[in-house]
Amino acid sequence: MICHFKRHALLLTPLIASLWCWAGLAAHAQTDPLPSWNDGAVKKSITDFVARTTAQGSPDFVPMPERIATFDNDGTLWSEQPVYFQVAFAFDRVKAMAPQRPEWKTQQPFKAVLDKDMKALAATGEKGLLQIMAATHTGMTVEEFHKLVLDWTASARHPRFNRPYTEMVYQPMLELLTYLRANGFKTFIVSGGGVEFMRPWVEKVYGIPPEQVVGSSGVVKYQIGKDGKPVLTKEAKVEFIDDGPGKPVGINRFIGRRPVFAFGNSDGDQQMLQYTAAGAGARFMGIVHHTDAEREWAYDRKSHIGKLDKALDEGLAKGWTIADMKRDWKVIYPFQK
Amino acid sequence: MICHFKRHALLLTPLIASLWCWAGLAAHAQTDPLPSWNDGAVKKSITDFVARTTAQGSPDFVPMPERIATFDNDGTLWSEQPVYFQVAFAFDRVKAMAPQRPEWKTQQPFKAVLDKDMKALAATGEKGLLQIMAATHTGMTVEEFHKLVLDWTASARHPRFNRPYTEMVYQPMLELLTYLRANGFKTFIVSGGGVEFMRPWVEKVYGIPPEQVVGSSGVVKYQIGKDGKPVLTKEAKVEFIDDGPGKPVGINRFIGRRPVFAFGNSDGDQQMLQYTAAGAGARFMGIVHHTDAEREWAYDRKSHIGKLDKALDEGLAKGWTIADMKRDWKVIYPFQK
Repeated sequence: MICHFKRHALLLTPLIASLWCWAGLAAHAQTDPLPSWNDGAVKKSITDFVARTTAQGSPDFVPMPERIATFDNDGTLWSEQPVYFQVAFAFDRVKAMAPQRPEWKTQQPFKAVLDKDMKALAATGEKGLLQIMAATHTGMTVEEFHKLVLDWTASARHPRFNRPYTEMVYQPMLELLTYLRANGFKTFIVSGGGVEFMRPWVEKVYGIPPEQVVGSSGVVKYQIGKDGKPVLTKEAKVEFIDDGPGKPVGINRFIGRRPVFAFGNSDGDQQMLQYTAAGAGARFMGIVHHTDAEREWAYDRKSHIGKLDKALDEGLAKGWTIADMKRDWKVIYPFQK
Repeated sequence: MICHFKRHALLLTPLIASLWCWAGLAAHAQTDPLPSWNDGAVKKSITDFVARTTAQGSPDFVPMPERIATFDNDGTLWSEQPVYFQVAFAFDRVKAMAPQRPEWKTQQPFKAVLDKDMKALAATGEKGLLQIMAATHTGMTVEEFHKLVLDWTASARHPRFNRPYTEMVYQPMLELLTYLRANGFKTFIVSGGGVEFMRPWVEKVYGIPPEQVVGSSGVVKYQIGKDGKPVLTKEAKVEFIDDGPGKPVGINRFIGRRPVFAFGNSDGDQQMLQYTAAGAGARFMGIVHHTDAEREWAYDRKSHIGKLDKALDEGLAKGWTIADMKRDWKVIYPFQK
């Protein structure tokens, strides 16, 4: 442990300084920074990595500004079943907007959402989903969208757990984020999800500020409104998809440094993990493996959501850390503590 | 002044705590955080803004996470004459690459650069400049480009001052960046310049980490190289121009929060300043006005580089802070201290 009071100690009497550091060390010895992780190789791979990259004089020491840690969001920090939560938000918006859009009663893909006809919805394919996203995510200012997201996180409930979606986050990963930050790592989200969908709530939920979120985005336009005030409006045009090979591209664009630590859960994270692995010096690559149908969900190679196939093969072959939810996590959600 | 030791004071005996805070206050009273700014309305507008946005209980108090400060780079943090320094870099690259590109001896716009024929170069227009940028900034990995930039900042010298370009930064602005950070502001660069051209050196020169730089960018592609290692290569396609209306768009995309403090120097910063001004609560909008031909350069409404016309009118009309270099800055560059 590094004594955090080094700098101040110069001003204190040596006696007080040593008592203080001693108290810190004692407190540290008693506190497990990852209490929701079961003891074992996975937990040890995390604490070993942090120990050897942060100890002064260690051959694997990483200077603080280079301690960049990136996390996928869907399936890595919060759940993604039975549908990505942003899609649940979009469906709820279709329902809320329907009274003002009577034509949706007969128009696909909206009719399918309103009728809860998942088969008809699936038949509209990716095009249908993009239409739903455009109708619910654009044609408004970024502030208006921000408010819609916050209203939804406050009111919507997950169908299986009857909890706000923002409570469907993984307690072990919350502890990991806090633990990394306490050791001088800067934590970022790098998600295929929409950046404007995540930013309103990630600071409160994950302790990650909005400026440390990389995500997919639509075109935003600067305009002077009727009242003479400038506004940023969300246009119905995809700008950037932060998924697969887009993740290292997004990391380079937004962060401009290669992570030393990355965690994902699906093939969409494979390139981020490869890119992290290819840097010089100590590296940590982690994968959340969804193995717990009872407490969460169990899926991997054949799932439509969060498919984990090629990245699992590469992770197993290269000795990346594979966190098995059932084996490695004492609890899943904070409300189960 | 806020006593920075509040949290620790709980652990100290009250006597030591009060001595400590007293020492801090005494030291503070003696130190001017902006010694290179002449006393006057401009300096006072800065210190007043910081005082009222950071004092607990002040009606203008801004919580620390929202203390976002954005700075243009060219003409605001460093000089931009006789040409933008990134263009000087591109010209130097053309000269360095010429032995491998014999066809450039007869091919415009490269011939003009090699002949130092500025008239012929101007005749190739924006298209010519884009060709030069593509030839010198793309077709390599981001790491290779990073190294070229650092080699150039170490070796190239400004034609007028015979100094490395990274010494052509404004001492008063360096002090302002430090002062804002000491008061809990997070400082960002929001520049029309290339993000990959700035990131290699901004941390050392400005104390701003690469992840807090927003700039123009070209398309970057993720590929697996011949050795099986993934690389990011710079493609000859413009992706985003972070200038004019692009600045609030870039701020929204990269930072996701509206600044409370912004500083620019040209019409390319007008929309960033408008967007900053349009937020609720206390706001600071600043413009560097280049008025000192002797110590730096004097230019504004009619300049091809860093044209300041409409933004100056709006700034004067709305009472933004206009820093007059000649009047308000004791020194321009650190090497003149």
